[in-house]
Amino acid sequence: MAETPPEPPASTPAETPAVLPLAISLGDPSGIGPEVIAKAWARRREAGLAPFLAVGDMRSIAQVSAVPVEQIYDPTAAFDLFDRALPCLHVEEGDVAPPGQPTLDGARCAFHSLEIATGLVRQEGAAGLVTGPISKVRLAEVGFTFPGQTEFVAERCGIARSNAVMMLAGPSLRVVPITIHIALRDVPQALTADLIRSRALVTARGLQRNFGIARPRLVVAALNPHAGEQGHMGDEEERIIAPAIAALIEDGLDISGPYPADALFTPRARAGYDAALCMYHDQALVPLKALDFDEGVNITLGLPIVRTSPDHGTAFDIAGQDRAEPGAMIAAIRMASAADAWRKASAASA
Amino acid sequence: MAETPPEPPASTPAETPAVLPLAISLGDPSGIGPEVIAKAWARRREAGLAPFLAVGDMRSIAQVSAVPVEQIYDPTAAFDLFDRALPCLHVEEGDVAPPGQPTLDGARCAFHSLEIATGLVRQEGAAGLVTGPISKVRLAEVGFTFPGQTEFVAERCGIARSNAVMMLAGPSLRVVPITIHIALRDVPQALTADLIRSRALVTARGLQRNFGIARPRLVVAALNPHAGEQGHMGDEEERIIAPAIAALIEDGLDISGPYPADALFTPRARAGYDAALCMYHDQALVPLKALDFDEGVNITLGLPIVRTSPDHGTAFDIAGQDRAEPGAMIAAIRMASAADAWRKASAASA
Repeated sequence: MAETPPEPPASTPAETPAVLPLAISLGDPSGIGPEVIAKAWARRREAGLAPFLAVGDMRSIAQVSAVPVEQIYDPTAAFDLFDRALPCLHVEEGDVAPPGQPTLDGARCAFHSLEIATGLVRQEGAAGLVTGPISKVRLAEVGFTFPGQTEFVAERCGIARSNAVMMLAGPSLRVVPITIHIALRDVPQALTADLIRSRALVTARGLQRNFGIARPRLVVAALNPHAGEQGHMGDEEERIIAPAIAALIEDGLDISGPYPADALFTPRARAGYDAALCMYHDQALVPLKALDFDEGVNITLGLPIVRTSPDHGTAFDIAGQDRAEPGAMIAAIRMASAADAWRKASAASA
Repeated sequence: MAETPPEPPASTPAETPAVLPLAISLGDPSGIGPEVIAKAWARRREAGLAPFLAVGDMRSIAQVSAVPVEQIYDPTAAFDLFDRALPCLHVEEGDVAPPGQPTLDGARCAFHSLEIATGLVRQEGAAGLVTGPISKVRLAEVGFTFPGQTEFVAERCGIARSNAVMMLAGPSLRVVPITIHIALRDVPQALTADLIRSRALVTARGLQRNFGIARPRLVVAALNPHAGEQGHMGDEEERIIAPAIAALIEDGLDISGPYPADALFTPRARAGYDAALCMYHDQALVPLKALDFDEGVNITLGLPIVRTSPDHGTAFDIAGQDRAEPGAMIAAIRMASAADAWRKASAASA
């Protein structure tokens, strides 16, 4: 972990080299973020990972991993270094917090790391943003006023929160929850045709721009069992969901539904679409985690930048025990690289 | 399909031979029931199926399948016959309905077939009941006043509907929905600690009696995302579900929760329990069908008899096209045989 001398300032955006590293914020230094990022770096060759740099407290990596870490001051330095060490833009807030024991300094460090990594991508100093897991409760205690990292990144990109759409993607399935972190009893009144429509439009554009799918095929899950059986078990399908789908077809989308949710995630059904729009959190997350646990990636659609994150939390309970699986982090890094490549291809052809 | 002469009446229950065939109602003659039952018989050897007899319109099998079918009048005749032909207790209501074109006569035939098959098992003329798929809408039109076959069977067994518990079981997962066929918006007020408790007790007993699991491990899903996050996103976990679990632990059950639903169906989580109690239909059915589609079996717990059915409907749209997969029917037959064997073992040791 010898320090390298500061390098010359990065080139200006106009001179930006065609290929940039990804920026990965370490997340909470006491969570499993530092460990899974170090493990992802250790598997960089067999996993075929493009160069990335970590943003956060270097010491939080050293205390859970023996991988070589080197401090850099300029993202472009990541390229030369990446083969032999994990490049890190060091962020320090007081003493390093021990694994599994989150502190307020640690939360501040996570906040600043996110801020710096986001800024780096915004300024085209990095190709895309991958965010390590943070504790929302802890971040709120240090003045972070956003429900989650997604909303923070959206604001820094000048995008309304409602237009930043969370998609969860794994090898078997891509899902978009229409409503997210609300009580189940509040879901029916939170669902509107406008909300479904705006999420679907962002999803379709995101699949084009970040996944290279020219004409995305979308399906929409019903809210009620058996899709309500013609109004016998709920009428949201007829009142809200079907009209939204009709409007989206008018908009030119390849979209259909509402389908009974339990029929939508069988192997045969999944082969027929690129993403499923789900009415509530668990309707989307239950099949994703049942099928693609350890490989689920959260990708934010609707942003001018690429942003992904592994679909797991800080897991303070296992931090520092060398038990964290890096699969989701590796998948998040791969998806960010691919999304950036598609984004560039799409911009070049536009 | 030569008819065999009537045989002597079955032995009385006291003289019942140790092994009896299973009775399978064909379900709606225009649905895929006859086809999947014929296909299950055709695969009887490689699938290792115990002898069974079909109850329904023999002609509905003949019009979709070339397997040999022979009429019997006594269930015990099924044993000698089973190796060379599918034994059938013939039930006729007018002309046979063509595949894919349900008729009222067909619904009457499905109703009577269910009635006869249930009676046979109740009288200990058959080891267990497997029900083919029916159309609830059609059955209602011919005077069937039950929400589904489960409630009919429960009543014929003298069991309150609320004590007959539907479990869906596949190779990867067993789930019990606490609320079933109601609108999602009605789920929160339908959930009570008493309902959860009674379903959990029947489930635990059913796993002992029908699956031979001496001390079943049960888990309970939360209603809200992230299990409500300490009341931030719904309070049913604290008000209703946790107290029910506490009472069940007092009752001596091995049960825990409420767990966030999206964490409950990962491979690691599934390894830790025998059945998951789910708060609503799709919470149970989405992971089951995502993981075990084509092999999901509906087994009714809390009855004095064994009753299973394949977890699919009549599929009128593909009936008669030789496209129906018999996997779920085969799984339902196997599960009924196994459940009967465990039931006998449990009765013998009691």
